[in-house]
Formats: sequence, structure tokens, C-alpha cells
Amino acid sequence: MALIVHKYGGTSMGSTERIRNVAKRVAKWHRAGHQMVVVPSAMSGETNRLLGLAKELAPGKASPSYERELDMLASTGEQASSALLAIALQAEGLQSVSYAGWQVPIRTNNAYTKARIESIDDARVRADLDAGKVVIVTGFQGMDDAGNITTLGRGGSDTSAVAVAAAMKAQECLIYTDVDGVYTTDPRVVPEARRLKTVSFEEMLEMASLGSKVLQIRSVEFAGKYRVPLRVLSSFTPWDIDIHEEAASGTLITFEEDENMEQAIVSGIAFNRDEAKIALRGVPDKPGIAYQILGAVAQANVEVDMIIQNISKDGRTDFSFTVNRGDYAKIMDLLRSSVIKGLGVEDLEGDTKICKVSIVGIGMRSHVGIASKMFRALSEEGINIQMISTSEIKTSVVIDEKYIELAVRALHKAFDLDQPATA
Amino acid sequence: MALIVHKYGGTSMGSTERIRNVAKRVAKWHRAGHQMVVVPSAMSGETNRLLGLAKELAPGKASPSYERELDMLASTGEQASSALLAIALQAEGLQSVSYAGWQVPIRTNNAYTKARIESIDDARVRADLDAGKVVIVTGFQGMDDAGNITTLGRGGSDTSAVAVAAAMKAQECLIYTDVDGVYTTDPRVVPEARRLKTVSFEEMLEMASLGSKVLQIRSVEFAGKYRVPLRVLSSFTPWDIDIHEEAASGTLITFEEDENMEQAIVSGIAFNRDEAKIALRGVPDKPGIAYQILGAVAQANVEVDMIIQNISKDGRTDFSFTVNRGDYAKIMDLLRSSVIKGLGVEDLEGDTKICKVSIVGIGMRSHVGIASKMFRALSEEGINIQMISTSEIKTSVVIDEKYIELAVRALHKAFDLDQPATA
Repeated sequence: MALIVHKYGGTSMGSTERIRNVAKRVAKWHRAGHQMVVVPSAMSGETNRLLGLAKELAPGKASPSYERELDMLASTGEQASSALLAIALQAEGLQSVSYAGWQVPIRTNNAYTKARIESIDDARVRADLDAGKVVIVTGFQGMDDAGNITTLGRGGSDTSAVAVAAAMKAQECLIYTDVDGVYTTDPRVVPEARRLKTVSFEEMLEMASLGSKVLQIRSVEFAGKYRVPLRVLSSFTPWDIDIHEEAASGTLITFEEDENMEQAIVSGIAFNRDEAKIALRGVPDKPGIAYQILGAVAQANVEVDMIIQNISKDGRTDFSFTVNRGDYAKIMDLLRSSVIKGLGVEDLEGDTKICKVSIVGIGMRSHVGIASKMFRALSEEGINIQMISTSEIKTSVVIDEKYIELAVRALHKAFDLDQPATA
Repeated sequence: MALIVHKYGGTSMGSTERIRNVAKRVAKWHRAGHQMVVVPSAMSGETNRLLGLAKELAPGKASPSYERELDMLASTGEQASSALLAIALQAEGLQSVSYAGWQVPIRTNNAYTKARIESIDDARVRADLDAGKVVIVTGFQGMDDAGNITTLGRGGSDTSAVAVAAAMKAQECLIYTDVDGVYTTDPRVVPEARRLKTVSFEEMLEMASLGSKVLQIRSVEFAGKYRVPLRVLSSFTPWDIDIHEEAASGTLITFEEDENMEQAIVSGIAFNRDEAKIALRGVPDKPGIAYQILGAVAQANVEVDMIIQNISKDGRTDFSFTVNRGDYAKIMDLLRSSVIKGLGVEDLEGDTKICKVSIVGIGMRSHVGIASKMFRALSEEGINIQMISTSEIKTSVVIDEKYIELAVRALHKAFDLDQPATA
């Protein structure tokens, strides 16, 4: 008998029919002798519906007291779906109880709309499990020290599930979603893309941060920190599929490097269409310049992704970075109106028609020549590389947006990702 | 500066447009120097939508653990509308904060779906009021001693508002709704029906229990117990109506008999189409019979309204009572299958085509002949009376359903309710 955490996304909870299927699946696991904690998301569309109402009332408003109310509002979606799942489980003949975040309690800091979990008291949940109940822990939400409801940001139910699994030392946390695992790249772009049976925590972190939207990145960080075995799998298999088959399906995110994992050098190709490039040319090369530019960007609460500064020439350098495309106009205005004035920058230019493509693989740590193989594959397709950034387990390039599919397909083939990896 | 509680029903909160109007109205009261606590219902249709989902998952199921989840589910509707109202008030430039029942906290017993309020801690709300905030207290809900969410039953937001007003010793509790006050009878039946400027607490109690669905009856009981000045008024007047005019509109429910109230003997005609009559004929007249019959009905969790037992003849009596029409078939089955067998009852009959019409008036206490005036008015219209029941301030008759409008109009006229009362 093991303690297992299941997490079901909004699509899996999207109708009473689907909720009933979730209940039947959970009941199967319970009857197989497992103690079950289930973390559901809000029914699909519900969070958007609620936040849409708020936006109608207060377009563009943002303050802590406003965001506090957004959390009061948005948290109701998950509370409702949790209660519905408990009801569906009872209809299956099981004992079941649902808890809102504050009832567990899941304690967070008070950063409304993007709070971080600080602690989870599992006494209440554990007592129910020991009494034979299936416990539903409402995802996406918690409570701050002053008793206010907080939410964890988009996709926060993943983080709730992993955090509960960590706090309760669950044997495994299964994230049921509308895809059946993590792929070498997006199958809509490369039909030959292959599902990975395992992927390392570090690779998953890079893939998530690079736009593979299977898991909220914070949940992966959490899983890494507490070494929670995490599996991404499909909620669209029949609920009565053999439990051993189900338990081995999807993609397992691993932490042990000596596990029997696939030993591909590159595990996947990630890409992101949602970036824009900003370049400051002829920046005087003196201390503090990077801070003067990016400090202002950070103060505007905009996240910067890639940052490139080349060696200088004649006392001047080029400084470029990428931001989310939605922040592009705001940052260009900011730079024009205040930042670059005092710096003596020669030119400011930007481009929204770019994309980022990355190869990710834990094997890159110990293999040389991987980046150059990437560059060659792109060059063979006539694709010009505008920016390059590397980390220990990934290499990213910025290219013209129009080449994105071509680049991804070329790289997928160059690294033999359509072939099963050799062990 | 006074402390005022406003309560807005589901129709008043039915869209973002309406919520904005509520916010503007509340802001007007706040700017006039009042401390404001606002209790909103869920957006109209939301509670039905949520409970409909539960019913799809578990049709007909009922147990404490099921009802606990129903409360988790249904309570989200009010929490969402509370947050939306706080957001709308902030958009009006006010400081505002919303609290779920458990955050206040409003403590209740653990009778899920129909909990009763046991205590309200007003410290948090009072601190916010003193800091100049408008406080939204989520209606319809509370928390039991074990930290479970409870709801107060249909219309429970009225009770929440009155309870908060009582706990905080508010100067007045204003119930904004889709009617503009309490009428001498339903204007759809009698076009000459007149709005009452005041109505006594006892009369309101009878009117509410007799099917005038302006206020939840428990909220009236609560107002009576704690002597909370309660006003029912329309939320469909323009929000910028003069505040003094608004404060004097609607119907005030009074407790002081020596107040300058209307001195009509009969204040209103209430009626209820939703009853059914059950009669047991030739019941042996011995001790315990009433208990044997009605005890079984109560165990089936069905409420009995009128109960009539006449004097016996030859050791046998007739015993009749009325129940909600929806419970009729169930109770007839119950009586046939088990209850009447051992009793030696001669005949069981029932009728769903009946209605109840009542005259209500605190003046009846000190005036004789009121009931006979009622019976004469009905007899002049050729309406046969099937059952009669009286209390200190009301007289009710059961008649054939088809006469309901005729009876109500005849009584409204007989007691001069279309004329303003003399002071």
C-alpha cells in the first residue's frame, strides 16, 4: 500500500461526464490498495470566465487589494471542482472529503496571484487517509499568515499536487493531462516526435521554461527540490485500463542519474514563438551599463529571457536581450523615453518577428561538439542565427520566426530524435 | 455616522453591469458618511448551476458527507460575487475587502445545507470599517467548529445580513431585492395591492411563512430576536436617487408597538398554492394517534403545515393535515404502506388541488369578529372552506385551488386593503 497523489487538469475535469471518469479512475487506484490524494484544477474555462468578469469591472487595475480579490474570486473555480469530484467519488461508493487550501492548511506567502507555498500541515489529510477516505485537496490555492486566500499562478494546481506529494512523502505524483507525456518536440510541428519514457528533472525544467507547456515550471522546481517522483500521463485513456499499464505510461521525471534512463545526448527540441528581441547598439562599455538597462526593465516588472553582450570594440559594445512579446512595446517605450537618454547609446532597435529554438539534453554536459552540430544543421537549411545562448544542458538560438518549423524539424532529425534512444 | 448593512439579492448581482450599479449605490452611502457592510448573494442562476452539476453526478443521494460537499460547492457562488463587488467598489475609488464566512468568522452548527449561525466575531470587520474600508461579508455561509464550510439554506444571505447587523449593532439592515417592499398581497393577483410602509415583525413572520417570498423566514426570526431594524427595498431604483428618499423607501419591519405604525387590523392577504391536503377519516380517538401519524411523517423529513383534529364522535375522529405538494405522493405511499395499517383508520384521502389563503394582522389580537368577517366574504363569493386554522395574528383557510384569485381579491377588498390605513 502506497500513498499516491493524482492531479487532474481543467480539461480532464471539463464536464460532469469527465469528472465521473476521473472518479472511476481514482476509485480503481483506491481499490488496488493505495491511499489516494487527488488535486483537481478548475473545470476548463472557469478561471477565464471568472477573471473575465473581474476585468469587465476593473479593466487594467492592479494593486495588492485588487489582486487579493482576484484570488478570492479565482480560487472558487477549484473549490467547486474539488467538491464535485468528492461527490462523484461518493457516488462510486467511496468515502471522500474535499478541502480548500485554507482547510488543509496550505500556507503561502502573501504574493497574491503568484503566491509561493511555505508549508503544508498534513495531519488532517493523513487522518482521513487512515480512515479509508479519498482526500481531495483543492489545487491552485493557499492561505497567507493573515488568513487571506492566495493563488499560485497559472497552472498552480501542478505545484499544489507536487507540494502535497512532497509534504506527505508520496510514492509518486501522477499529473493527468490532455497530452500523454513529454515529447522530443511538439508533434504538431514534427510528426515523428517521440514520447520520452523518462526525462531528467533538469531537462524537464529547461523544456518547461522554453515553452513546452506540459507542466508549470514551478511544480518542476518543487519536484526537484524535494525529489518527488513525478509522472505526466494522459487522462484520456479509458478509466478501466489495467492499472500496471497505466502506472508505467506517460513520462517519468527522474532525479537519479544512475537510473536506467535513456542516454540520449539531446532529449528534445523546445521552441518559443512568444519572444521579441531588443538590441542597443554602440553602448559605452563601462561598469553599471547592464544594470542601468535591465534594472529599469525589472522595475517595470518585465522578465528578461536571453541576455547577450558581446566583447566591445572602440569602447562600445552591443547589448541585446529578449522579452515576452506582450511586453515589447512597453519596454521599447521605456528605453526610448528614459533609459537610453543618459547612456549615450548609438541606436535602439527591436524585432518581434523572431523565435527561439533550443536543444535540451543532460548528455550535453559530457559531450563536446553538440552546439556546432546544431549550428551546422541550421546552416544547411540556410537559416541565419541572430543570437546564441548556452547553459550546461541546453543551447538556444534566436532565428527569424518564419523558419521555426523548418529549424525544429531539421534539429529533430539531426539529433536522431525520431529513433528510440540506445540505453 | 452610522453603521449600515446592505444586502443585495442574486438578481441585483446578476451581471457585471448590475454589480457596478450596486457598487455605485454603496459608494453613495459610504460618501454620505456611513460605515458600510455589504452582504451579496451569488449571481442569479449560479447556485442552481452548481447544484445542477452535483445532481448530475449523484442523483438523489443524501448523507452528511454528501451535504458537506454540496456546501463546499454552493458556497463558491457567493464568494465569487463578493470578490466581484469588492473589485467594483475599488474601481469606484473606495477601499474595499471581501471576507468568506470562515474569514470573518461566522460560526454555525454543522447542519450542512441548512446550518444555523451561532456566533459572529466582528473584530476583523470593525477594524476595516474604522480604517475607512467598505467590507463585503459573503452571504449564505459560515464555518462549523471543525472548520468545515456550511451554508444557511436558500435565501440564507438574508439571514447572514441580519446576523451581521445584529452582531455589529447596525443602525439598519437594508435588504435590496427585486420588489420594492412588502405588499398587502401579491399585486399580480390584486392590482390594487398597496405597499406597506411598515409591517410588524410578527406579521412579516406570518407573511414569509405563508409564501410571500420577500425574505427568508429565518432572517425575520433573527431580526425579531435581536431587534434589528430591517428594511426591504428595491435595487432597481437609479443608484443616484437621493439618499434620504432611498432611506425612506420600501417597507420597514418594526418591533416597537408604540411606533407610529399603520394601525390596520389586517395588514395583508397571504396565499400558498403549493400545498396538498391529506385526511384520515374514522381514526380511533385514543392517546398517541397524532404522534403515530405525524411522527412517521417527520421521520420522512417532511414538514407538516396545518394540522386539524376535530372532536370525536363514537370514539372516532377525523385527522387532517397539509404538506408541501412535492411531498404529497411520498407521504400518501408512506401512510398506505405502513402507518395506517395498525391504526384501524376507516379511510385515507388526499387532494392536491387546494390552496391556503390567510389574513394576517397584528390588530387581530385586540379585535373580535375578524375571522367571521373573513368567512362571510368567502361565503358571499360561494367559496367553500375545507379547513380552518388560526393563530394570534392570522386566520388561514384551505379552499379549492380554482378559487384562489377570487378569494384573495374578495378578502383584499373586504378588509379595505386598497385604502391607505388610518393612523
